[in-house]
Amino acid sequence: MGKPWATFGTDLHLEQTGPHVRAGLEEALRDAVRSGRLPTGTRVPSSRQLAGDLGIARNTVGEAYGQLVAEGWLTSRPGAGTWVSEQPLADRTAGAVASPKAAAAVRYDLRPGAPDLSAFPRSGWLSAARRALNTTAYDAFGYADPRGLPVLREALAGYLARVRGVSVTPDRIVVCAGFAQGLELLCEVLRGRGATTMATEAYGLERDRQLIAAKGLGIAGLEVDQEGAVVDDLGDADAVLLTPAHQFPLGVPLSPKRRRRAVEWAVDGDRLIIEDDYDGEFRYDRRAVGSMQSLAPEYVVYGGTTSKSLVPGLRLGWLVLPAGLLDDVVEAKRTMGRLSSAFDQLTLAEFITSHGYDRSVRRARLAYRRRRDRLAAALSKAAPRTRLLGVPAGLHALVGLPDGGREADIVALGARHGLGLEGIEPYCMPGHRHDPALVIGYATPPEHLFTAALARLCAVLGSDHDGAGG
Amino acid sequence: MGKPWATFGTDLHLEQTGPHVRAGLEEALRDAVRSGRLPTGTRVPSSRQLAGDLGIARNTVGEAYGQLVAEGWLTSRPGAGTWVSEQPLADRTAGAVASPKAAAAVRYDLRPGAPDLSAFPRSGWLSAARRALNTTAYDAFGYADPRGLPVLREALAGYLARVRGVSVTPDRIVVCAGFAQGLELLCEVLRGRGATTMATEAYGLERDRQLIAAKGLGIAGLEVDQEGAVVDDLGDADAVLLTPAHQFPLGVPLSPKRRRRAVEWAVDGDRLIIEDDYDGEFRYDRRAVGSMQSLAPEYVVYGGTTSKSLVPGLRLGWLVLPAGLLDDVVEAKRTMGRLSSAFDQLTLAEFITSHGYDRSVRRARLAYRRRRDRLAAALSKAAPRTRLLGVPAGLHALVGLPDGGREADIVALGARHGLGLEGIEPYCMPGHRHDPALVIGYATPPEHLFTAALARLCAVLGSDHDGAGG
Repeated sequence: MGKPWATFGTDLHLEQTGPHVRAGLEEALRDAVRSGRLPTGTRVPSSRQLAGDLGIARNTVGEAYGQLVAEGWLTSRPGAGTWVSEQPLADRTAGAVASPKAAAAVRYDLRPGAPDLSAFPRSGWLSAARRALNTTAYDAFGYADPRGLPVLREALAGYLARVRGVSVTPDRIVVCAGFAQGLELLCEVLRGRGATTMATEAYGLERDRQLIAAKGLGIAGLEVDQEGAVVDDLGDADAVLLTPAHQFPLGVPLSPKRRRRAVEWAVDGDRLIIEDDYDGEFRYDRRAVGSMQSLAPEYVVYGGTTSKSLVPGLRLGWLVLPAGLLDDVVEAKRTMGRLSSAFDQLTLAEFITSHGYDRSVRRARLAYRRRRDRLAAALSKAAPRTRLLGVPAGLHALVGLPDGGREADIVALGARHGLGLEGIEPYCMPGHRHDPALVIGYATPPEHLFTAALARLCAVLGSDHDGAGG
Repeated sequence: MGKPWATFGTDLHLEQTGPHVRAGLEEALRDAVRSGRLPTGTRVPSSRQLAGDLGIARNTVGEAYGQLVAEGWLTSRPGAGTWVSEQPLADRTAGAVASPKAAAAVRYDLRPGAPDLSAFPRSGWLSAARRALNTTAYDAFGYADPRGLPVLREALAGYLARVRGVSVTPDRIVVCAGFAQGLELLCEVLRGRGATTMATEAYGLERDRQLIAAKGLGIAGLEVDQEGAVVDDLGDADAVLLTPAHQFPLGVPLSPKRRRRAVEWAVDGDRLIIEDDYDGEFRYDRRAVGSMQSLAPEYVVYGGTTSKSLVPGLRLGWLVLPAGLLDDVVEAKRTMGRLSSAFDQLTLAEFITSHGYDRSVRRARLAYRRRRDRLAAALSKAAPRTRLLGVPAGLHALVGLPDGGREADIVALGARHGLGLEGIEPYCMPGHRHDPALVIGYATPPEHLFTAALARLCAVLGSDHDGAGG
């Protein structure tokens, strides 16, 4: 096992000084793993030993190892050392629930639905956890308030009012295990009150549609045009689920006129709008449009999540509820198996009040904006017949294929290049179709893989003879 | 607001040196809050200032403040200082979900259902969180495996085999949001397979009975005697939920003969046993009896939780499943709103593998054993006509009242003394009754309140003329 390392130190072509030593070391290590020169399972030398071999600071080696552990190239356990990760990286970037297809070997993942997990602010989060746990009275560790811990609801109320213009007080908030649990609770309550139909955009997550159906509600699909969901077609649905800030996955915002019309529909018929504000903090061309909920807080439920702004693994989201729904939703949430972790709640509250959350969102916004710009520039050069659709916002973009381009061909071609791609087709409700397009999750890859992912995407989309043209 | 403090420093009768300075300061501060000399909301001086006033080390003051924050007497927020907690302590020790009655002002809580929350190993947990987050590849922060993160299932498999004799491999484990979610999943799967009836002990948590009924299953109650649940009466129920290690709340273990009989019933009729091992790590008179699951791993589901061994606010539990149930339970758990926090899972895995969990359980076991011994000794002296029932184990004991003693009178009398008490009656299924008794949760109070709680309990039970005798 020591063999690959024996020659490795001397093989490295490293600048020995200056700001690039660490970056160079990281890249050299990645190359060595990628190329197979360092087989999986290989134990790497201690940071002290490698630093000595290379004549660089031990700290630099330690930081490089830490980064590579974070990226999944290396695995480390206290007391047991560090070694080259045993599973191929592709297996471990797969999201078991979000994408059942993820089991395929995908090295460059451009499927939508997740932020850059490698950018999670670990040290900031840990600091917040430490402050939260050390300043919290022990009662917070007991069987929790089903609405969520008061300290988190207070922090969220301030944040949502300030950043998303939500009309909110802490007592109107119910903390959930992600937005999905919130939608479950709402469907149960609505069904219990006799509702039979939920309308929703005809393009969206099949997961949400399955959830609504599983709770016994029928689904009515709304077409989506350049002004967003065609809410004129709401008819006599009992409620509607919308993504007003940035339609998922088509990427258009709901126009002011449509917002007003939807609210009139709700108020006139005493019906409910559910606003899924999954990526509302991310708008790049202008200041983000505020929440729709503030137009009619007694008819609109506002739903949010940390799944895009931090990471999905946190499993925290929230509903801001009309007074008339509050008690029933809290009762549904009271079921023991639905309570959320006190530790995560306390940490998120501290992370928000200490402005770590704002900083993290701002950093992510800059990074994703840059990625979207690069995507647009690269495609216009390498695949000028594709079209980038929707507004510059969020973590994904819709890329329209040239006439005759077939999604399935492109996805298959991408897979042969190690690219994870998804077409628009899986997002369409039965009976609805959209011109061929890819839903590109430009936030998904870790930063160090984005350039390569983009290059491969351009190669796939630019190669007319391979099916992108037609 | 500064007033109470102006005289406070000079009022303190403190040893100024030696190991008792900090303990003395803590007790003086508690007294001052208790007596009202420091009204709620009073801002306390900085640790630097008070240390100067008292001529003691600043560190000592800081540690005393930290302890009192942990106990709930003081509230602290970084950057905002420290003040006397604004709500009466009693309100904040109330468990919103477990005990709806907890809204009453209870200062000395002897109701069962929770461990000593103030003993949660904060610094050990934070260290484990830091190690876990710094050595984990980022993919763990994505949409999680519905079975739970592999690293946690591996750690649990090792722990459960070693400590509880469970027959288990990591792939048979499903991590849940507490045992309650596990029971939900099982009920759904059983109902989906056509089951109609779940048997369970006729004395137990109403919460579990409500959950079973809500999932559409009928409930059959089993009597409990000195050998535990009378499993001869299982009849044609489709499954049975049992607490074999320490019947809740009667406190008897299921005898070896009854265990064998239950397993025969399950095997002969292809039925299921659900073993709720909620406090199996806590046995004081002998080595704990191993899990029942190991007798027939394909017919017994083993369920466990951190709610007693750590704190309920963690919302982590687990099922160890027969092969024939595994896929269906995983499918039910796959629902997005049911996934568990990746952070808590990673931290618990690290806490277990680094033996912090073992240490924490051992410490709690010693503390609770001592409390139970003190309870037994105090009652035999102050209230000799009561009887301590069940085996020395767990976090609660059943205290039989003298003939003619009425639970409701004792509970009401306790309330007048600031004591939180519960009788056995709320735990009895309709149609079943038990001789009058209290279910004493001796683990519930924080350590510094246990002596006072015990004294008040003895006063209440010892005062024959007040209703304990009859």
